[in-house]
Amino acid sequence: MKNYNRRKFIKTTAFSAAALTAASTLSNCENPNVIPVSKGKYMGGFSALKMETVRVAFIGLGARGSGHLKSIAKLEGVEVVAISDLFEDNVVRSLKVANEIGKGERHNKIAQYWGEDNKWKLMLKEIKPDAVFISTNWNNHAPMAIHTMKSGSHAFVEVPMALNLDDLWKIVNTSEETQKHCMMMENVNYGRDELMYLNMCRKGIIGDLLHAEAAYIHELRFQMNQEERGTGSWRTHHYANGKGNLYPTHGLGPVAQYMSLGRKEDTFKSIVSYSTPALGRKLYAENNFSENHKWNQLNFQNGDMNTSIIKTNKGRTVMVQWDETSPRPYTRHNLVQGTKGILAGFPTRVALEGGFGKVTKDHHSWIQGDKLEKLYQKYDHPLYMKLNQKTKNSGHGGMDGIMRYRIIECLRNGLPLDQNVYEGCFWSAVTPLSGKSISEGGMPQKFPDFTRGKWKKTSPLEIIA
Amino acid sequence: MKNYNRRKFIKTTAFSAAALTAASTLSNCENPNVIPVSKGKYMGGFSALKMETVRVAFIGLGARGSGHLKSIAKLEGVEVVAISDLFEDNVVRSLKVANEIGKGERHNKIAQYWGEDNKWKLMLKEIKPDAVFISTNWNNHAPMAIHTMKSGSHAFVEVPMALNLDDLWKIVNTSEETQKHCMMMENVNYGRDELMYLNMCRKGIIGDLLHAEAAYIHELRFQMNQEERGTGSWRTHHYANGKGNLYPTHGLGPVAQYMSLGRKEDTFKSIVSYSTPALGRKLYAENNFSENHKWNQLNFQNGDMNTSIIKTNKGRTVMVQWDETSPRPYTRHNLVQGTKGILAGFPTRVALEGGFGKVTKDHHSWIQGDKLEKLYQKYDHPLYMKLNQKTKNSGHGGMDGIMRYRIIECLRNGLPLDQNVYEGCFWSAVTPLSGKSISEGGMPQKFPDFTRGKWKKTSPLEIIA
Repeated sequence: MKNYNRRKFIKTTAFSAAALTAASTLSNCENPNVIPVSKGKYMGGFSALKMETVRVAFIGLGARGSGHLKSIAKLEGVEVVAISDLFEDNVVRSLKVANEIGKGERHNKIAQYWGEDNKWKLMLKEIKPDAVFISTNWNNHAPMAIHTMKSGSHAFVEVPMALNLDDLWKIVNTSEETQKHCMMMENVNYGRDELMYLNMCRKGIIGDLLHAEAAYIHELRFQMNQEERGTGSWRTHHYANGKGNLYPTHGLGPVAQYMSLGRKEDTFKSIVSYSTPALGRKLYAENNFSENHKWNQLNFQNGDMNTSIIKTNKGRTVMVQWDETSPRPYTRHNLVQGTKGILAGFPTRVALEGGFGKVTKDHHSWIQGDKLEKLYQKYDHPLYMKLNQKTKNSGHGGMDGIMRYRIIECLRNGLPLDQNVYEGCFWSAVTPLSGKSISEGGMPQKFPDFTRGKWKKTSPLEIIA
Repeated sequence: MKNYNRRKFIKTTAFSAAALTAASTLSNCENPNVIPVSKGKYMGGFSALKMETVRVAFIGLGARGSGHLKSIAKLEGVEVVAISDLFEDNVVRSLKVANEIGKGERHNKIAQYWGEDNKWKLMLKEIKPDAVFISTNWNNHAPMAIHTMKSGSHAFVEVPMALNLDDLWKIVNTSEETQKHCMMMENVNYGRDELMYLNMCRKGIIGDLLHAEAAYIHELRFQMNQEERGTGSWRTHHYANGKGNLYPTHGLGPVAQYMSLGRKEDTFKSIVSYSTPALGRKLYAENNFSENHKWNQLNFQNGDMNTSIIKTNKGRTVMVQWDETSPRPYTRHNLVQGTKGILAGFPTRVALEGGFGKVTKDHHSWIQGDKLEKLYQKYDHPLYMKLNQKTKNSGHGGMDGIMRYRIIECLRNGLPLDQNVYEGCFWSAVTPLSGKSISEGGMPQKFPDFTRGKWKKTSPLEIIA
């Protein structure tokens, strides 16, 4: 919040120009111009060998992990072989759930791990699962995903993939060297609207894509009441000490696939970012916790609202926002503008040049509310139509169930996953890159090309039936 | 749209750092770090001597100018003394309108000017009006405003104030030297919702302001059918040859006054900007005009959609967008986020922490549609309540009439205008600054301080009854 004086401005701009030439000022992986040599094989479009039964294990059985287990244990061709968590009660609860689902016919020999921090490593070593689902705190995503792949298992990681460019590169390199999947589980890409918009973009309904908008605007201050265990107990420290957009992927994942970023058509080029002052969490702590409570000892430094603009290789733009603090209704924006129309979310609304049937006469009015029914009838994604009945109660309006179904389906049939390791890394890279841009007064930051130029060889995600 | 290679990136960043030190690379006024010395007196809070009757003249009587005349001629204490336009028919039409309104009691001696480009200068010299309303093409705003002030008249200019920093500084300097008003007529600041939101922000209803969003998203491709006369005949060339956000003020003006930018509390610091490819106008020209039509000879270079982020002195952010090409419904965003709630537009919607009366129980749902009535009852701006009945048919839902009423009221009573010359310049500066940021790959651009540090002495706009 210091005054913007000329010296500071020149210093930051000069530094940044320098930083790009002097790799020494950064670890190699933190410098987008230093592309580490791959010791492995490109993973775009990678598919593993078919497996009749997928032997799955879970690291982290809290709010998110236990949901994954409950839903995945029900899928055909799945055997739950091991579960681990820091806390015994989480393990016991999920064991009970898996056994009930197995009805004595499967999930009968589930190895259980809890207690010390590293029990999950022992699990990977002793059990050697086919696929491991990682739902732990953000700091552990990268080391757990990397160790999982090195132990010979495919890694499925909660969002974000990692928090810094160094770890993102380690994940890419490890995946290429071990030839193991590492998918960041972006469930929102499987939402009904997101699937329909992907379908409409592929059909050319809105012409050439120009611009998109993505967000995670979700007021979660109440999580600060999870003082000892649960999301709030660790995320609150990120809000205090992190920098930039700390949770970009839910909004960005879907629009990145509409635009096929990192897949032949286009890719990520650069980003600029600014944050607001950080006022909301401090205010909430003061109003809801005692003066000497740990939350009132924190120095909340990361701006409440972050706004970034991504420029793509083709010159298209993606505006990305993040705010988990300010009081306002939820939105992910989910907007994509083309030369012939616009698709948007929160509320779901569409406008098409020339109008839509008898619903709208031109692009000056929205197709929304009850009028959307005709749009869904015409453009719902085949995957949604196939799975909705099965998955609608699976969480987040069904998107979680469709994602889990597809993960298992792809593994059992030896198909490429819908989200490759590079996409998870590009989407997650917005956190460190937005933070660096803010530190440098809004300087544009170049995206590292995690594919090492091979994105041009990876086909856009197909419309899967 | 070239690939983002390292050399280019370093070149642009290095150049920009240099540009700020080497004023020689730019005209002084184009360099935000070179503040020209003022030969006049600061105009923040300036008020001219009372005038019983305001002798008004008009330059430009097209779509916008004729509307100003028709509405202003009806106001008490106004005498229309001269009108000018390039075209005789425009002059004749407005003369008839003024005479009908005057009913033989006033507006009887209206000097008329048309024909050559410079007839307006002759008008200023011969008639010496008190106030001149300038509604001409963008290129003429600055020279006409400057000449008007130098001729001894107050200047009221259509948006934008000017197109480059050089002209904006000339306007500031001329206003300070001549001690004449130069107000950019941002009518949107007088809209019902904008006035109510200003009122709510002043009352602290949404707490401390953090972030705002402004836009002019208005699909105007049809104006290309105005081939010889009218807006499209000249604006189309701006779309082809301009750069960045070409029309920022309708969205930005109101949110800038919510935040009191340039008025004691906070001011403009820097901006980053990216545009999309330019596809829509070319496509429209190809689909609607013959192959050899002049519109098909243009090389449309300015991106269809521009997105910029402004950082304020206090660290707050304003996301500003512009798109007059892509097919989608109209919006100005009109959003402001505070620590206790959010106000937004298109559609008008508000969410307040703790809810609003019996309408909403918390900030997770919007007060909108029919539910807004209670909000208007409680927070409508007194100026709107006073004038709505008189002005509701004055254009743009009444905002035009309120603006014109206030201009005349302030002049007749010797009051400061609601928008000072510096605000018009700050808001208009987004065009050249966004263009420069785009040319430099998204480099942050510093706002020139048109007030020369005196913004701290200018009170925020009051809630006028």
